[in-house]
Amino acid sequence: MPQNPSAEERMSQVVSLCKRRGFIFPSSEIYGGLKSTYDYGPLGVELKRNLCQEWWRSMVHARDDVVGMDAAILMHPEVWKSSGHLSGFCDPLVDCRTCKARFRADKAPQQPVGSPASWREGGKKSGASQRGVVGPQGILCPQCGSPDLSEERQFNLMLRTSLGSVDPLGALVAHVAANPGQAGPELRQALDALLRKEAVYLRPETAQAMFVQFANVQQSMAMKVPFGIAQIGKSFRNEITVEHFIFRSCEFEQMELEFFVEPGTQGEWLKYWCDQRLAWWRAYANVPENFRLRPHDAKELAHYADACFDIEYRYPWGYGELEGVASRTDYDLQQHARATGSKLSVFDPQRLNPETGKPGWRFTPYVIEPSAGATRGLLVYLLDAFCEEQVADGKGEASSRLVLKLHPRLAPIKAAVLPLVKKDGLPELAHKVMADFRRAGIRVQYDEQHAVGKRYRRHDEVGTPFCLTVDGQTRTDGTLTVRYRDSMRQERIAADQAVAVVARHLAAQPGTPAAG
Amino acid sequence: MPQNPSAEERMSQVVSLCKRRGFIFPSSEIYGGLKSTYDYGPLGVELKRNLCQEWWRSMVHARDDVVGMDAAILMHPEVWKSSGHLSGFCDPLVDCRTCKARFRADKAPQQPVGSPASWREGGKKSGASQRGVVGPQGILCPQCGSPDLSEERQFNLMLRTSLGSVDPLGALVAHVAANPGQAGPELRQALDALLRKEAVYLRPETAQAMFVQFANVQQSMAMKVPFGIAQIGKSFRNEITVEHFIFRSCEFEQMELEFFVEPGTQGEWLKYWCDQRLAWWRAYANVPENFRLRPHDAKELAHYADACFDIEYRYPWGYGELEGVASRTDYDLQQHARATGSKLSVFDPQRLNPETGKPGWRFTPYVIEPSAGATRGLLVYLLDAFCEEQVADGKGEASSRLVLKLHPRLAPIKAAVLPLVKKDGLPELAHKVMADFRRAGIRVQYDEQHAVGKRYRRHDEVGTPFCLTVDGQTRTDGTLTVRYRDSMRQERIAADQAVAVVARHLAAQPGTPAAG
Repeated sequence: MPQNPSAEERMSQVVSLCKRRGFIFPSSEIYGGLKSTYDYGPLGVELKRNLCQEWWRSMVHARDDVVGMDAAILMHPEVWKSSGHLSGFCDPLVDCRTCKARFRADKAPQQPVGSPASWREGGKKSGASQRGVVGPQGILCPQCGSPDLSEERQFNLMLRTSLGSVDPLGALVAHVAANPGQAGPELRQALDALLRKEAVYLRPETAQAMFVQFANVQQSMAMKVPFGIAQIGKSFRNEITVEHFIFRSCEFEQMELEFFVEPGTQGEWLKYWCDQRLAWWRAYANVPENFRLRPHDAKELAHYADACFDIEYRYPWGYGELEGVASRTDYDLQQHARATGSKLSVFDPQRLNPETGKPGWRFTPYVIEPSAGATRGLLVYLLDAFCEEQVADGKGEASSRLVLKLHPRLAPIKAAVLPLVKKDGLPELAHKVMADFRRAGIRVQYDEQHAVGKRYRRHDEVGTPFCLTVDGQTRTDGTLTVRYRDSMRQERIAADQAVAVVARHLAAQPGTPAAG
Repeated sequence: MPQNPSAEERMSQVVSLCKRRGFIFPSSEIYGGLKSTYDYGPLGVELKRNLCQEWWRSMVHARDDVVGMDAAILMHPEVWKSSGHLSGFCDPLVDCRTCKARFRADKAPQQPVGSPASWREGGKKSGASQRGVVGPQGILCPQCGSPDLSEERQFNLMLRTSLGSVDPLGALVAHVAANPGQAGPELRQALDALLRKEAVYLRPETAQAMFVQFANVQQSMAMKVPFGIAQIGKSFRNEITVEHFIFRSCEFEQMELEFFVEPGTQGEWLKYWCDQRLAWWRAYANVPENFRLRPHDAKELAHYADACFDIEYRYPWGYGELEGVASRTDYDLQQHARATGSKLSVFDPQRLNPETGKPGWRFTPYVIEPSAGATRGLLVYLLDAFCEEQVADGKGEASSRLVLKLHPRLAPIKAAVLPLVKKDGLPELAHKVMADFRRAGIRVQYDEQHAVGKRYRRHDEVGTPFCLTVDGQTRTDGTLTVRYRDSMRQERIAADQAVAVVARHLAAQPGTPAAG
């Protein structure tokens, strides 16, 4: 029986495995890292590619009613004005004047106004001890305990940059020269406005591209409502709190579908997509019960949504979001149509216009948006797959093994080809098997270092579902041993059937019982 | 015989086809676009995915000596200091004080100092006519003709943003308050330094991640030199001149390999990779002669390189870069090792140390870098595939057809399934064929609108290599017609063999004669 480590242990074991075995490294690690950005190593990139490929296959290739797109990360700044991100996508933040920390006022420890506070000079451990009282905001700096805080400011979560042949610094210098007396909040506001004038943003979600290109896609592909546009890509948010490894970070990857439907049908389509998406996540999981659907209550709803569900996963720290399925109404299309004067609507000559009762109806589609985190999905399946087992070693003694029970479709390496020894022509036979797999487009790895038992364990740890061992018997009767990762069962098959055996397991519909 | 349009015409026809048929749209088009950024539509995203997949397959999956990675776009800012990008990755730019244009001084029209110049007030057509003389720089604004220009400044090409809980504006305001007299270039420099202190950059190349993560990748995967790390991803450059559709834009995608070799062997590996890469590009092309290899001469070489070749394509406007294959020496690894104190070297216990003559050699690998533009590759294959042909229409009359002769592996849609008519059970039969293809993971499209000849033409235009027509005979004898895009040849095959026929063509090694 598998003996799983406790939830907290599992998290730290997964993080350590990810680093050790080439799944995930902290970005720029030799430079001390950069605020919770991560790089995907040789196995991580394959896992991520497989996850995204499965999503793309089920959302785009397997359907007649969805097409894909891949938009630029830099979009016209007015897009974010229309979408509401420029004004509304903010956290209320306070700066500590002592240690320069910036934090969310509503997450800081509450203190009675006027009660005593003590902290260290400059927020440093070596600083002189200071005493004072809690100010009118009723909070202290969560970092150093100082009550010397700025007023609360709205802090936009979009990353700002600028493009092209403008020189924002020149404008700042000119402004200072022209307004010699200006200082404090007034100057800040003026400089902010000047920088904002030339600002371009890194998209905080991929979704807006599907709305902005709605007409181009609909017309070039002659799509009829209901239809969807799917996209996988990076988004950026200047998150103040980054946490739980890759769960919340400033640079992340989304898999989003905007599914356009007739007004009035959004309720049934919301249900359809909730069911579809929940089933999809569960199909690749060892413990499908860890996924659940949670409706948003009214006060959680975004201003543009008339209903929303979260698909949540039971992370080691509790249930948390993995995907949101939102009913976004026609808010975004209407906003962009209004701002640009473009027609972001469709005309159906057959449908009766509900107002006139006559055939021919022009309407702005409603939108159902299943928006999944690819980065989170990767974390979820690593957590789901991670497992420490006590196994008998053949001589009746128990030893433990780490296994990543990744779904074969997600596994970075589908099969390892292992010559039992490095001589007697076995490496050559193994390379023939390798060539068969490569011809079939199946990702394999050759491995001849150390005893074969050790190699099995090494591949258990990275989730390789099939190990194919070539030995002396292969030379005489053309068979090899296939060893299944989860059951550790071994069987002999014809070497020239190895591709077919593995391919059959890979072709099985996700959600059917595992191999072996 | 194909009759190809002239080179210039081909470019504008390709751009128009891309928009009309859902390959490439200007980004944020309804907002007037954003400086040469582009979005990939439903067919463009498939073409790009296929191109990247072919690269990944040949560079990573087909080789034992290369592994992949996928790094964050945001890296530690010190990375760019070590790599030389912060100080050296600059264009010399001049600002026009009349029309605010920014341009490269060395690309501006040269004029004798003191010669007369005339331009319009404010750079506007409606402005009053102005007269003056050419200043000491000997240039005029290429936009409006004004001689009123700023001094030349080094303009870094990296896009700058900031991350996290710092408040760059606060520092600017404090600086202005503390230095009330400061103005002009002095103030500019001070503000620039303050902004730069908290700056984070969007990577201008993917390459640095492979150097910075060298040790993590090498150790986690137990790689032995020679080996490579491959990456596909977006990079950003604040290009002043954007041109030729997607050829040069500020946001683009790269496919880079850093191949680490023993010092002294870089010459042979450079040759190896030049040959490999040139052959790779040619294998998917209709006109392989349009690709060539061009050695850099000494003054073109980057400071870190000891040799470099460009793989060039004959674009409609002349030969231009598609991929660079550079011998980067050990420059980058040495720089990052020095800056961080990390050991970015390898130890080979078997090799003789060239200095002592004894076994055991620690060395910093040299690097060969084949760095390809995925965005450019896409443009190249669209240009290579585009073709306007005069064909006989069956009644002896000639008509013209547009065809994208994309390699089947690159084609967005591999096969179109077409019921001859929308009744008599043909759509049902066609959907059965669709299901077979989807089960095999081959991208198909169902299409029942308009006459079948028109549907053939529609699929010619987007490069679908196989059209499968289901008709009355399919019902009686289970056969269908396969129609080949390039030859327009038709033949009847068993419907249940359709997947096998198409799969056989897709499995053929690129570079072998085309289907049909």
